[in-house]
Amino acid sequence: MKSDELFALLRRRGVLWPTAEMYGGAQGLYDYGPLGAALKRRIEEAWTAWFVGLSHDYYRIDPAEILPEAVVRASGHLENFTDPEVECENCHSAFRADTVLEKVRPEGVDGLSSAEIGELVRAHGVKCPSCGSTKLSVPRPFNMMFGLDFGVTGRERVYLRPETAQSSYLSFARMWDVGRHALPLGIAVVGKAYRNEIAPRQVLFRMRAFTQAELQIFFDPESFPLPFDRVHDEKLPVVRAARRLAGSEEVELVSAGDLVGSGGLPEFYAFHLVHTFRFYRDVLGFPADRLRLLEKSDQERAFYNRIQFDVEANLESLGGFKEIGAVHYRGDYDLGRHGQGSGKDLSVTLTGGRSVLPHVLELTFGPDRALWATADVHLGKDGERTVWRLPTYLAPVPVGVFPLIAKEHAPYALRLSDDLATAGIPNQYDEAGTIGKRYARMDEAGTPFCVTIDGDTVGEGPLHGTVTVRTRDSKAQERFPASELATRLAPFLRPPRPVRT
Amino acid sequence: MKSDELFALLRRRGVLWPTAEMYGGAQGLYDYGPLGAALKRRIEEAWTAWFVGLSHDYYRIDPAEILPEAVVRASGHLENFTDPEVECENCHSAFRADTVLEKVRPEGVDGLSSAEIGELVRAHGVKCPSCGSTKLSVPRPFNMMFGLDFGVTGRERVYLRPETAQSSYLSFARMWDVGRHALPLGIAVVGKAYRNEIAPRQVLFRMRAFTQAELQIFFDPESFPLPFDRVHDEKLPVVRAARRLAGSEEVELVSAGDLVGSGGLPEFYAFHLVHTFRFYRDVLGFPADRLRLLEKSDQERAFYNRIQFDVEANLESLGGFKEIGAVHYRGDYDLGRHGQGSGKDLSVTLTGGRSVLPHVLELTFGPDRALWATADVHLGKDGERTVWRLPTYLAPVPVGVFPLIAKEHAPYALRLSDDLATAGIPNQYDEAGTIGKRYARMDEAGTPFCVTIDGDTVGEGPLHGTVTVRTRDSKAQERFPASELATRLAPFLRPPRPVRT
Repeated sequence: MKSDELFALLRRRGVLWPTAEMYGGAQGLYDYGPLGAALKRRIEEAWTAWFVGLSHDYYRIDPAEILPEAVVRASGHLENFTDPEVECENCHSAFRADTVLEKVRPEGVDGLSSAEIGELVRAHGVKCPSCGSTKLSVPRPFNMMFGLDFGVTGRERVYLRPETAQSSYLSFARMWDVGRHALPLGIAVVGKAYRNEIAPRQVLFRMRAFTQAELQIFFDPESFPLPFDRVHDEKLPVVRAARRLAGSEEVELVSAGDLVGSGGLPEFYAFHLVHTFRFYRDVLGFPADRLRLLEKSDQERAFYNRIQFDVEANLESLGGFKEIGAVHYRGDYDLGRHGQGSGKDLSVTLTGGRSVLPHVLELTFGPDRALWATADVHLGKDGERTVWRLPTYLAPVPVGVFPLIAKEHAPYALRLSDDLATAGIPNQYDEAGTIGKRYARMDEAGTPFCVTIDGDTVGEGPLHGTVTVRTRDSKAQERFPASELATRLAPFLRPPRPVRT
Repeated sequence: MKSDELFALLRRRGVLWPTAEMYGGAQGLYDYGPLGAALKRRIEEAWTAWFVGLSHDYYRIDPAEILPEAVVRASGHLENFTDPEVECENCHSAFRADTVLEKVRPEGVDGLSSAEIGELVRAHGVKCPSCGSTKLSVPRPFNMMFGLDFGVTGRERVYLRPETAQSSYLSFARMWDVGRHALPLGIAVVGKAYRNEIAPRQVLFRMRAFTQAELQIFFDPESFPLPFDRVHDEKLPVVRAARRLAGSEEVELVSAGDLVGSGGLPEFYAFHLVHTFRFYRDVLGFPADRLRLLEKSDQERAFYNRIQFDVEANLESLGGFKEIGAVHYRGDYDLGRHGQGSGKDLSVTLTGGRSVLPHVLELTFGPDRALWATADVHLGKDGERTVWRLPTYLAPVPVGVFPLIAKEHAPYALRLSDDLATAGIPNQYDEAGTIGKRYARMDEAGTPFCVTIDGDTVGEGPLHGTVTVRTRDSKAQERFPASELATRLAPFLRPPRPVRT
């Protein structure tokens, strides 16, 4: 499906819609409806189970989204978190430089100076997308953080965090104190980040308020113990930076062992790249051939990132591969900067007495983008019907409960619906329309199991107390005792976890 | 415990700490550490299970926290969401008028005009709490919303929402469209709200960024079908407004039936007041005698609230009864205002053809305050030990897993920890120190069950494969097969749900 078509379907089903749509909406903001909110929550839980589950020493915290100015000064965001913007001197519309240059320079403007960008705009006679004038200004850096006046004096400035990572860095000292004084220590945050994007677009892919799920692993650069042999042979679909600079974006399948051996990556990096890839393939259920791991070149990465691979998914709705996550080796940049900014040394003393300023490996993930991607990848036509083939544990509503004939079977069905909810199995009761129509509604919502209560269920015959369970993907129907439902379904509703022991 | 003492304990245990504490903190902002984040999430899940569980037609959504200016203009917040503020003309500190008047007028300044407040300040010679000067300004209204410049033009103004409720009102039309076109329809939001409090204080009780859990029930004022007879006899600890105006704050135990009969409350209101009270008593586990339902008088309520009871808990740390939730009957104010503001009529047509502008009953709850209250109420000394007697399903870490002797039993214990996690049971592995010390750590964290693996577990004797489970509150120990653990513990980890059928 194309983006517009997919968005229309999701909006019609109440998965998401523009914020304040009755007032005409707000650019780059979306509300999640019941299905979208539950799906997003399950994606976040699956991410947490997988990544925080990588170690007994990884923790999820929940810090505030507002940061004092001193923090974003130290992190470099106050100075550098900018996009080049051009303004039309005729109609006063403002645009991101890369968007007005999209045709002239499809590869983007990363690494170009303002002067170089301005020269491109001038040389190609680029026109204002709004009014057609060629009077576009010289590009200027536009800071994408939202600033706030904090307190009543008007003298205190704070910022909505542009990334959750900063909250983890700020918490490192406290987490070290309350923990068991050992590295690696992982601090995960799933929460909102805010960016005043010049040009929000592609629905959930460039929003002004969005969720990030990020795990910061603080480690001793001299020793990151991990069972590398377990992932040694796993092949990853990579596009190395050197190959890209030589003009090819072709995916190579390279084993983790070779990425380390001839490929020059550290073991700890390749190990986490494998686990990251597995998350997208085995947890979110994206087909392996729609995923690639794209290495960023020196010019493309932020200067503090020593190694960066983006995880990209091939999305029909957005016309190709799009970033949905990344693995950043950030070295000691972050703790170093905040050490300087706060005047507190963030080095820690390890058992044995050695002092070390921990390095950071960042595993970053966008639940909003992932939600869109699951719709792009898993939602589609199967003959006449529209089916969202979500992994069972991601389904917003895992179970539908239907009385075959509302008048006769509703009391039993309502009770069963309550019993399932009490047993921790979210479900939706539906008595409206034919069973076929109810199946169709649930297929579109991604519900993997539908339970029907009929005359045999409530009758006195040999099938008393049994229900029919219909499976979304196979359309197969099976009959078994209602009393066994919760136990039989529960294993399908828990997200996979990494093998740890 | 006093507030300072409780905060110090929670901070030391990594439950929460001031945001950016390494930079000196930020007033009114707190970060939740591993225990706090998990506890808060469980409180939110328990709230959702209980209140969204009240009906098959109640849904939880997840809307953006940013609202366009037209929305807060229509809702009245742009004009009226203010606190009276006084500024010291000597040292330029700013204060909320009620805080500088605390001794003179402990009941607060609600309902007083700026002139009346100014007169009180002058007449009593109130001094600046910072510098002691009596040069305090005339009170002026200070709008507590955080405004943002949105987009690049600087011409668009948006606001961080001051309450989650607005997001539900904005979603009503869309939710009606995607739903089954019937009232009552419930829309719940659990999410952040932001207020630029003049004087943040009492830790989690007056924050500048905080979470709200609010259910807006949209209903037909002529018909709200509910099984009132089921709650008819339930007695509630109320303090009616009339009694308060007559000078008494004494709690009366009044049945729901009498609140309706002689008390004049509508059935739908009393029904939800009962379910709200049950949430605090039966789900959060607060002792009934530390709760009261305080009716607000005409002068105290916002003018659009037709009936308001606050739920208050008696908290030692904060010196008495404090609000932790409320039930607001808001009439048709909200949909009326947004209908006018957007130019779209929000009336709906019911089966039968009657058109109605739905009324709103709002059940509102503060998870941050509840978290603090659970610590105040449930965390304390039991002889030598400090125990957090949280209801089992609220415990941040429900299970501790200990090898008796790390060297010998760690592999089995680590595997069991993983198996439990895979079965959906969060747990913490701990091998440090004596078993007694490990129990003590978990008691303080509120963990209800600790599992110990010992020589018998890993040995070949008759107790092979069995583990010891120690219960936090009774300190009783029981031995049973490790393979039964998940099944035995699971029921304790699910929050209660209301009886619906």
